[in-house]
Amino acid sequence: MIDVSDAYEALERRFRRLDILRQAEGILHWDQSVFMPPGGAAARGAQLAELKVIGHEIITAPEIERLLGEVDPTALDPWQQANVREMYRVWADANAVPADLVVAHSKACTACEAVWREARANSDFPSVLPALEEVLRLTREIGEVKATFLKVGLYDALMDQYAPGMRIDDITLVLNDYADFLPSFLGRVLERQKTEQPVIAPAGPFPLDTQRVLMRRLAETVGLDFQSARLDESLHPFSAGIPEDSRITTRYDEDDFADAMMAVLHETGHAMYERGRPVAWRGQPVGRSRGMVIHESQSLLVEMQVCRSREFIDWVAPMLKDGLSGEGPAWVADNLYRRVIFVEPSFIRVDADEVTYPAHVILRTRLEQAMLAGDLALRDLPGAWDATMQELLGVTPPEDRLGCLQDIHWYDGAWGYFPTYTLGAMAAAQIFQSAQTADEGILPSIAEGNFKPLMVWLRENIHGLGCLYTADELLERATGRPLDPSSFKVHLQERYLD
Amino acid sequence: MIDVSDAYEALERRFRRLDILRQAEGILHWDQSVFMPPGGAAARGAQLAELKVIGHEIITAPEIERLLGEVDPTALDPWQQANVREMYRVWADANAVPADLVVAHSKACTACEAVWREARANSDFPSVLPALEEVLRLTREIGEVKATFLKVGLYDALMDQYAPGMRIDDITLVLNDYADFLPSFLGRVLERQKTEQPVIAPAGPFPLDTQRVLMRRLAETVGLDFQSARLDESLHPFSAGIPEDSRITTRYDEDDFADAMMAVLHETGHAMYERGRPVAWRGQPVGRSRGMVIHESQSLLVEMQVCRSREFIDWVAPMLKDGLSGEGPAWVADNLYRRVIFVEPSFIRVDADEVTYPAHVILRTRLEQAMLAGDLALRDLPGAWDATMQELLGVTPPEDRLGCLQDIHWYDGAWGYFPTYTLGAMAAAQIFQSAQTADEGILPSIAEGNFKPLMVWLRENIHGLGCLYTADELLERATGRPLDPSSFKVHLQERYLD
Repeated sequence: MIDVSDAYEALERRFRRLDILRQAEGILHWDQSVFMPPGGAAARGAQLAELKVIGHEIITAPEIERLLGEVDPTALDPWQQANVREMYRVWADANAVPADLVVAHSKACTACEAVWREARANSDFPSVLPALEEVLRLTREIGEVKATFLKVGLYDALMDQYAPGMRIDDITLVLNDYADFLPSFLGRVLERQKTEQPVIAPAGPFPLDTQRVLMRRLAETVGLDFQSARLDESLHPFSAGIPEDSRITTRYDEDDFADAMMAVLHETGHAMYERGRPVAWRGQPVGRSRGMVIHESQSLLVEMQVCRSREFIDWVAPMLKDGLSGEGPAWVADNLYRRVIFVEPSFIRVDADEVTYPAHVILRTRLEQAMLAGDLALRDLPGAWDATMQELLGVTPPEDRLGCLQDIHWYDGAWGYFPTYTLGAMAAAQIFQSAQTADEGILPSIAEGNFKPLMVWLRENIHGLGCLYTADELLERATGRPLDPSSFKVHLQERYLD
Repeated sequence: MIDVSDAYEALERRFRRLDILRQAEGILHWDQSVFMPPGGAAARGAQLAELKVIGHEIITAPEIERLLGEVDPTALDPWQQANVREMYRVWADANAVPADLVVAHSKACTACEAVWREARANSDFPSVLPALEEVLRLTREIGEVKATFLKVGLYDALMDQYAPGMRIDDITLVLNDYADFLPSFLGRVLERQKTEQPVIAPAGPFPLDTQRVLMRRLAETVGLDFQSARLDESLHPFSAGIPEDSRITTRYDEDDFADAMMAVLHETGHAMYERGRPVAWRGQPVGRSRGMVIHESQSLLVEMQVCRSREFIDWVAPMLKDGLSGEGPAWVADNLYRRVIFVEPSFIRVDADEVTYPAHVILRTRLEQAMLAGDLALRDLPGAWDATMQELLGVTPPEDRLGCLQDIHWYDGAWGYFPTYTLGAMAAAQIFQSAQTADEGILPSIAEGNFKPLMVWLRENIHGLGCLYTADELLERATGRPLDPSSFKVHLQERYLD
């Protein structure tokens, strides 16, 4: 019989190994997206799969279950107790679902994703229908197993891996509130936009090397130190690496610098969260970031709350004009500001502004619940999509490529993921409001390009707490209340109407 | 009791996992040398160490020994039989030495290497003496354990991991033969050089981007396909990756393109060997490359035998002149040729020409044998070094920085490694001579920048055979005789005196 504190230490050793395997996988993924030549794809897939299998063997070994049973929480300090709770979460996630079901689901997703790429290119939803049926069937099966294990509903069980502990009943209230708020608010914003000067796009081309230098400086402004970070390029911007070695990416367009800039600021927000994780706990589950909602709140806080604020744009405008050798009225702060907050209902989620973005999420959340519950047959998805778009945003996509085929998520098996985007946006507003209340110097500092006061507050109240608390507890401690849409709506009111 | 063919398959599965761990380590090492920001060093070290430990646990698990005992070689085909032989070699190498001795040695090497960097900078040999004593003591201890296990002498046991199966008695004959040959040959080469036009260095600067494009074309000329390869930059050029995803590096100097060029050609030679490994056996020990001597023979065959030949330089000279916008007599093929084969005794091994390079290796091989045997006390190393340099090359380094402190090898624990350089150079000459005898079209093709016939022959006779044969057998099959210095001496005679 092992001593209880020995049991805890034995667990820490095993989870540390798991963490290091994840770190290695992270670099292999990053390399795959940034530098790997195409010929390396199959071998890289095999490498990643094997590292995953090794990790799976560690977490499903009977000794982990035994050690978790032997640990005595009363003998542990609060961080250790939270660590055991998170260890259990990781263990449950890996052990709840039978391995053959995981493999069948993974294969169905890979197959469906390949068909979907074709189907999207041809705007041919019926061609992907059989593969998607199979993904849905296996996703539902996994959800049911997890739901029984976690003692929650089917949708909550699927959401759990992305937003641990969150419940769809609470989320529905939040999303419905926004759905009620949106139509009249959007109408007023669009009315007001019409009365303003037309936005002028700065005229390029902007040489890529010049953009690269500038984007690096912007990431440094937010707080990224390139002694322990890199900024590279990839097809889709992302953030990877570890706190001591952040790897963020963007993509450049010679004719427009705005997308690259916003992607860098967004990914830097993610990286700053990772870099602020508690130093003493970084190799352990309690030292991880607190799920996708909080992660997205940190990227959106930097990109949307801070870097599309009038204060930041006023500060950055001369730097952009200078760095990109701009001339004329397009480079005036007021024009640049109105350009980065321009609102326009559109078909595509990833191109949406912050006002209409939640509508895209509400649509997907409603439809995926209906599909999972069997209330919406997959063959009826295109019609339901178009009707909901019309209801929420007053537009109807002319083809499925611009409708229900646009996102990879469902076809790749990520059901229950979509709400995290909008919950992240709302959490960002709520957190940023509390930060400003706590330290009135934060916004004036940002007006001078100084992110230090903001980052100090975030590190103390969000980043440095890892998984010590649940996401709900974390938000309550940082902002005094659970997640609600009020701060987000206040923010939109101030930015777009006041 | 497991079925014998099941035992073989069970071994293949375990060695495939080991191979994939090595691949992952390879990319992490490559990233560390090429792109990793300095802040990531400690975490990367921990990642690599953990992957090594996982591999060590797999290879030292009792089941591997049991499975190796259960396999019936008579039921296997020749590739499978050779695979079992190589599995046993890998297993023996990992299991012969107690784990705590490996750890102690590894720590002593890390500590000594750090002291050595200081000592070399200050040319202060006494300061590294205690750390080096410890490395030698533990290296000797490991060598003795291995010698007993492998039933060979101490030096052979240390050499085994670099040049499996080779024996110092044979090597000594080869090296002594060259030591006898060198003084008068070198004298005649230097005499003849004096009678020729002075070599003119092409005048730079050569913009780095221009050099990069050119070096990529040269690697492609040798046969590297950038659909499955990369060329990057690092402090020391190296070759890494896997056959489907080669990663070679070089370093650039704005004032001279020759070093970058020769490094690219050298590393491409290494990469072509890896890319030619037998497709069906790549994840298994028998599908690996056949030790350092054969590997170095492939890089030196491309760099020294082929790419410093008059035929290749005649072909490449206009391309260099064109690509680097050169003008004047420095760019004439005859001048470029005499520049890449210029001979000059010097203190530093890595800068040595191919005539004097073996003297550097002979010196190190003699001295490391004497130190291991206890016939040379470490405190007497500087004196012995200088005396041997004087004897072999007629020069005496003015300080230890240019003498016994120049190479990392001894300080980092790589005893028994040095002979592989010169044995590789000799094997390169012997193999290239046989290739030309077998296909008389090889050299004329190279004179047209076409490496295909050479690579076809190498793939059939060297690359594609992996570890099916021992290094000696491989050479005998490819060239009709074991390794000897005669082809190398003929090559030198023809290049430098005829």
